[in-house]
Amino acid sequence: MTDQLLQEFNATRAQSIRNCEPLQAEDFSLQAEAFTSPPKWHLAHTTWFFETFLLKPWLTGYNTPEPLYEVMFNSYYNGIGEQFPRPWRGLLSRPTLDEVLDYRDHVNAGVEQLLRNRAHPHRADILARVTLGIEHEKQHQELFFTDLKYSLYRNPLLPAYMSHSLAPASTPEPLEWHAFEGGLIEIGHRSADFCFDNELPPHACFLQPFELAHRLVTNGEFQAFIDDGGYRQPNLWLADGWEVVQREGWNAPLYWLQRDGAALEYTLHGVQAREPGYPVCHVSAYEADAYARWAGARLPSEQEWEMAAPEVQISADNGTYHPSPSPGGGNLGQLYTDCWQWTRSAYAPYPGYRASADAIGEYNGKFMSNQLVLRGGSCVSSTGHLRRSYRNFFYPPDRWQFTGIRLARDSGV
Amino acid sequence: MTDQLLQEFNATRAQSIRNCEPLQAEDFSLQAEAFTSPPKWHLAHTTWFFETFLLKPWLTGYNTPEPLYEVMFNSYYNGIGEQFPRPWRGLLSRPTLDEVLDYRDHVNAGVEQLLRNRAHPHRADILARVTLGIEHEKQHQELFFTDLKYSLYRNPLLPAYMSHSLAPASTPEPLEWHAFEGGLIEIGHRSADFCFDNELPPHACFLQPFELAHRLVTNGEFQAFIDDGGYRQPNLWLADGWEVVQREGWNAPLYWLQRDGAALEYTLHGVQAREPGYPVCHVSAYEADAYARWAGARLPSEQEWEMAAPEVQISADNGTYHPSPSPGGGNLGQLYTDCWQWTRSAYAPYPGYRASADAIGEYNGKFMSNQLVLRGGSCVSSTGHLRRSYRNFFYPPDRWQFTGIRLARDSGV
Amino acid sequence: MTDQLLQEFNATRAQSIRNCEPLQAEDFSLQAEAFTSPPKWHLAHTTWFFETFLLKPWLTGYNTPEPLYEVMFNSYYNGIGEQFPRPWRGLLSRPTLDEVLDYRDHVNAGVEQLLRNRAHPHRADILARVTLGIEHEKQHQELFFTDLKYSLYRNPLLPAYMSHSLAPASTPEPLEWHAFEGGLIEIGHRSADFCFDNELPPHACFLQPFELAHRLVTNGEFQAFIDDGGYRQPNLWLADGWEVVQREGWNAPLYWLQRDGAALEYTLHGVQAREPGYPVCHVSAYEADAYARWAGARLPSEQEWEMAAPEVQISADNGTYHPSPSPGGGNLGQLYTDCWQWTRSAYAPYPGYRASADAIGEYNGKFMSNQLVLRGGSCVSSTGHLRRSYRNFFYPPDRWQFTGIRLARDSGV
Amino acid sequence: MTDQLLQEFNATRAQSIRNCEPLQAEDFSLQAEAFTSPPKWHLAHTTWFFETFLLKPWLTGYNTPEPLYEVMFNSYYNGIGEQFPRPWRGLLSRPTLDEVLDYRDHVNAGVEQLLRNRAHPHRADILARVTLGIEHEKQHQELFFTDLKYSLYRNPLLPAYMSHSLAPASTPEPLEWHAFEGGLIEIGHRSADFCFDNELPPHACFLQPFELAHRLVTNGEFQAFIDDGGYRQPNLWLADGWEVVQREGWNAPLYWLQRDGAALEYTLHGVQAREPGYPVCHVSAYEADAYARWAGARLPSEQEWEMAAPEVQISADNGTYHPSPSPGGGNLGQLYTDCWQWTRSAYAPYPGYRASADAIGEYNGKFMSNQLVLRGGSCVSSTGHLRRSYRNFFYPPDRWQFTGIRLARDSGV
Repeated sequence: MTDQLLQEFNATRAQSIRNCEPLQAEDFSLQAEAFTSPPKWHLAHTTWFFETFLLKPWLTGYNTPEPLYEVMFNSYYNGIGEQFPRPWRGLLSRPTLDEVLDYRDHVNAGVEQLLRNRAHPHRADILARVTLGIEHEKQHQELFFTDLKYSLYRNPLLPAYMSHSLAPASTPEPLEWHAFEGGLIEIGHRSADFCFDNELPPHACFLQPFELAHRLVTNGEFQAFIDDGGYRQPNLWLADGWEVVQREGWNAPLYWLQRDGAALEYTLHGVQAREPGYPVCHVSAYEADAYARWAGARLPSEQEWEMAAPEVQISADNGTYHPSPSPGGGNLGQLYTDCWQWTRSAYAPYPGYRASADAIGEYNGKFMSNQLVLRGGSCVSSTGHLRRSYRNFFYPPDRWQFTGIRLARDSGV
Repeated sequence: MTDQLLQEFNATRAQSIRNCEPLQAEDFSLQAEAFTSPPKWHLAHTTWFFETFLLKPWLTGYNTPEPLYEVMFNSYYNGIGEQFPRPWRGLLSRPTLDEVLDYRDHVNAGVEQLLRNRAHPHRADILARVTLGIEHEKQHQELFFTDLKYSLYRNPLLPAYMSHSLAPASTPEPLEWHAFEGGLIEIGHRSADFCFDNELPPHACFLQPFELAHRLVTNGEFQAFIDDGGYRQPNLWLADGWEVVQREGWNAPLYWLQRDGAALEYTLHGVQAREPGYPVCHVSAYEADAYARWAGARLPSEQEWEMAAPEVQISADNGTYHPSPSPGGGNLGQLYTDCWQWTRSAYAPYPGYRASADAIGEYNGKFMSNQLVLRGGSCVSSTGHLRRSYRNFFYPPDRWQFTGIRLARDSGV
Repeated sequence: MTDQLLQEFNATRAQSIRNCEPLQAEDFSLQAEAFTSPPKWHLAHTTWFFETFLLKPWLTGYNTPEPLYEVMFNSYYNGIGEQFPRPWRGLLSRPTLDEVLDYRDHVNAGVEQLLRNRAHPHRADILARVTLGIEHEKQHQELFFTDLKYSLYRNPLLPAYMSHSLAPASTPEPLEWHAFEGGLIEIGHRSADFCFDNELPPHACFLQPFELAHRLVTNGEFQAFIDDGGYRQPNLWLADGWEVVQREGWNAPLYWLQRDGAALEYTLHGVQAREPGYPVCHVSAYEADAYARWAGARLPSEQEWEMAAPEVQISADNGTYHPSPSPGGGNLGQLYTDCWQWTRSAYAPYPGYRASADAIGEYNGKFMSNQLVLRGGSCVSSTGHLRRSYRNFFYPPDRWQFTGIRLARDSGV
Repeated sequence: MTDQLLQEFNATRAQSIRNCEPLQAEDFSLQAEAFTSPPKWHLAHTTWFFETFLLKPWLTGYNTPEPLYEVMFNSYYNGIGEQFPRPWRGLLSRPTLDEVLDYRDHVNAGVEQLLRNRAHPHRADILARVTLGIEHEKQHQELFFTDLKYSLYRNPLLPAYMSHSLAPASTPEPLEWHAFEGGLIEIGHRSADFCFDNELPPHACFLQPFELAHRLVTNGEFQAFIDDGGYRQPNLWLADGWEVVQREGWNAPLYWLQRDGAALEYTLHGVQAREPGYPVCHVSAYEADAYARWAGARLPSEQEWEMAAPEVQISADNGTYHPSPSPGGGNLGQLYTDCWQWTRSAYAPYPGYRASADAIGEYNGKFMSNQLVLRGGSCVSSTGHLRRSYRNFFYPPDRWQFTGIRLARDSGV
């Protein structure tokens, strides 16, 4: 157990560093908006998590390299104390990258020491917290990519994270509908494997019959919505969404560009041709909902999604940091490796949900208002991080995640 | 049918005027914040509703007294056209009150004419729309009181709408819990009587066993929460709620006052002693949720509420424009006549929900994001307006409605 | 002395009421923006001024009708105490208009009583303060018109204060330049008559030779500036001004309207044809400065204006609440009765300036930053209120006063 | 001429690089607020200035390394074109520092080539523009320090730029007043040496007799103002200043710290003891004005300052990046090497001022509104950059420059 966990710990910690390899020194402090975090901050905060919830309580004689890190790299844990203001994370030029890497090594050594102590009186808690810390770091590995993409996009040079070209996509297959009978089903995580507390407890739920699209909505389909005046017809939009469209001047998904008549898209590979056969990505829940209404469909509930989806079989990372072209029919596809899928479900506690009583209890529960659940996974999700019962959550106007649209409809419509 | 409907139409229209009787001329334009509307605007907008959705489409030869009213008194119907900016409604000194009353008479006459025409080709639509317009006006009769209270409160003179004193309250009975088994139940409106489209369709739903408090949380109980540092402990709050507490400096419900050591409350009867035995009112969903967490309970879901509540038997208006003291035990009380009850349920479409395709379709459906459902009714709800399946909805931080707290908990906790 | 002063006091107090005669009851609370005040508030605040600075300190046994008025109608006198928030003045539905009129009568009686007491130990102060209070009320009589015009303009019905039509204007005379030699001159108020403290002390000042335009810039001339792209060329603008133009989307003076191809202007007489021969009015200092730069000229300094202008001979009120058409040449015209004239001079203390030490000292001195001096007077200035040395002051972006443009240039250019 | 100018060009360019030596890689992108710029941006923008105003127009065959730099490093020259948004300068992770240094070399070579071409048809313009570019870069060398200090201060680690300790200061000499007779004097730059256009033309001006303090106000004196409630008495403040005090919660100069009872100050040498004998620094014009009022004095006008000050004799850079302790009496001291001195004079054009007609004309003239003139120089001003007639200008609330207080008063007070 220890060996395997330590191996996974080390692999995860190494992966965070590996993700940074293509960066220039200057990129490590980039924070274009308060809701993004700089690469260096992600590296420090995931380290802080292990230090705060493992080393400080349980490693005898542990010394922190800098007491102020407790404040500087605390994201939102009021139970731990004050937090450095989120919008200023990009202003932390010190500690330098080298100092942060030293901090990582220092904490890694402490975690290893703790894990090797099989007789530690808090052994079970330690194993659970290391596991949680690994999953936490995998979440930040995904945020690393979404935040970086957002911040690089502010630069008129539109720099690439990597410089591969995306493959052209053939014309996508027509959309197929998969029908499900609904009825009384069980929702939530059931196995003994790790899950977050928000996936618990498993519980019964009654669903009406419904249908799900076999693939995500494509760039080409979304272009048709735009061409039909989709962004100019208030009757297609939720009132709060229409307000955002007006205020922000939205007329296309985030990262869509038009230059000299060419349809382009900013990607982690720089500016690329915008292929109609790729899934539309970086849309808000409002845009997803408006598109669905225009298409005579709706967004799925999270229970419908969970009922319909098979458990994840493949690694999330598709190796390209970009969604893949739309698949042919037959199976329910593009579930875990392309774009997160907005649901119509508010992020709320499952019946019987209990958050843990200590500071770790702030991990999920306190965010259960005003957000929507997304299901599946994306092309920048970490390998081995996803589950069928996984509940991601963002605010309806958010667009900087790799978020796409899977349509649903009531059966018999 | 016509006679009864016409009678109800006339009674409702007259009630709106009667509610204004205690006002001074200057009060008719009061709008303290964008989310409130002035009394005169309510009078005009409810008239606009009948004019727009009945007279203009279906009364041959109808002439509007002023074409610009179409814009000035349109609340949010994009299908009708442009709207005068909401935050500026208090700036419409013209039309004067007399002109608005003339407008009401003019439209009343038109509606009566339309109703008396039993051979009208759109007879069924007309009856449905008049019914809807009556219910719409009853909603605005409630908003009249909540908006007026909010606006008068800005005045250092703290004027009263009426000048009765509230009865002192005896010490409330201890809170009792009523248990419900849950299971597969039906939710939504089933009879042929009027309901709003958001109460449809009736549908099956599976609930876990739960318990509901027999009465609302009292001022005295909420004071204990405050005395225990409730407003200063972030771990009791949803993250978005804690952010509002900090930003707004909340430390008590809206309208609570402290003067020379006396606990007071602003009411529509002016400043009154704050009685521990009255229900706490004018709390946001965040405060309701934090209180429930502090009390080891939670807010009910809207389905739990609907399952537990008997159909409304008595008129909503308790005659005092203020919640009544807490009742003794035995029955589930204070459901419809005191304070609306926040639920944990996001305001979302029922499975199979369809909004109507025309402008009237904007009535409910487009608001189904970011809001929570409230159930029951309040001391300022209009007589005959409420139902067991009625779904009221507001944003979590909203406090200017008569909103209170009914606790729930999982069975066996 | 007393008789004459009492007569002027009574005349001024009556004039404020007379100005309100054309108003509807609903107009008395209008406040479209924080920088405007409602008519009822002007009536109450000018009364508060006499009560606060005369009756409370010096009228033995004086009783205020309502102690809270001290806060509610205090504009900005920190020396008196707390002030009701300025943006909320329109929300003071109580006291009602009748109660405010009673307040006026109550205070008028007190002032008369004080004035008739020739043996009062503070006799000299009383006379000075009554004089100041009269001048203060005359300032508010002008603000009454400017604020009312601004607030009525928010209403889509565009109501008129009065309903006269403006006379058409003949083609204006070409602009003539009057030359002045400059040199060492004296600036500031010299006679024993009343002046505000900011006009003191008179002092020497050295001016270069300059020239002043004989009349104000006209609508027609300003239209040529617009037609030449004046609002779209940043090089014509001060940096702060260009920022406002972009942010506010300015492309014409306030109150200019275009409808079905017709050039119109909102006036206190409602919407009128916009005549090329009338002076352009309601421009900010930024627009005045940009126009001057475009025209190869500049704005005058306040010293240049004062050196050039003859003392005022005629009453300010031209009876039409609107500037008059441009005059023929020969004399320096349109000085006091049409539009205030922006100068390039920052509002700053004259050398040797001393503000009085008590709360009255807040009248002028504390505003001496970030504002510009305007000279002359306007069509809504109160009769008998103006002087050659009078220094009006507003912020450069302000447009809701009757502000126009008089050009200046260096001699020999 | 060429040799000397080229030498100064090279020395100035090298100085900008030398100033960066103590920086960590991460510091080069720091921009805490929109009004500051990152070190890397300063390096690029000063280069852009030479490229834009010299190489592009006059160096035949010049190739820019990147056409987008024209937008990215344009500060505010609308005549050149669009500007990358100022608040986002810290987000320009690319070009990297190395690329910016290459850009500097590339442009340096071009300028040298241009300077060596003595037969260039635009020879005179070239010499003038190179001189202007050098002065421009010296201004940015000062901003480099003020911006860096401001941005580093956001970091809880409070990093030092350099790590010297400041010398303790002995008790300062009592303040002495130097009297000046005023009269008709000449103001503005007169020699053939370089000056900015805002120092021209020299012109006559009449001054009343006045007195100037022989040194700057000290930390100790300012502490007495605070101890006397200076930040809590509105009567000491200009109205706009009081508004800022309330809004920002000011209660001490920027960079003053209190820790465990110790009076500290953040400096470019990190946190240091706050010595009473050093000049107070980093105060806004509002604080300077309030202090002066409290002290029974006032701020000087810029003309008084210029009349009183001797021409600068010594280099500005005092070698410590911090003001020096207060000097003894006898002479007018601390003029050029410690803190800029706020004047009461609005930044406005001198009589007869003309800005040049091309884009370079945006250098000064368009900022002549809403700002105040500061005179003298500071401890971070560039060597050889200052003059007696030099007019620096900032907005009254600005505090991040090295700004201090020199008192003035009317003679005979």
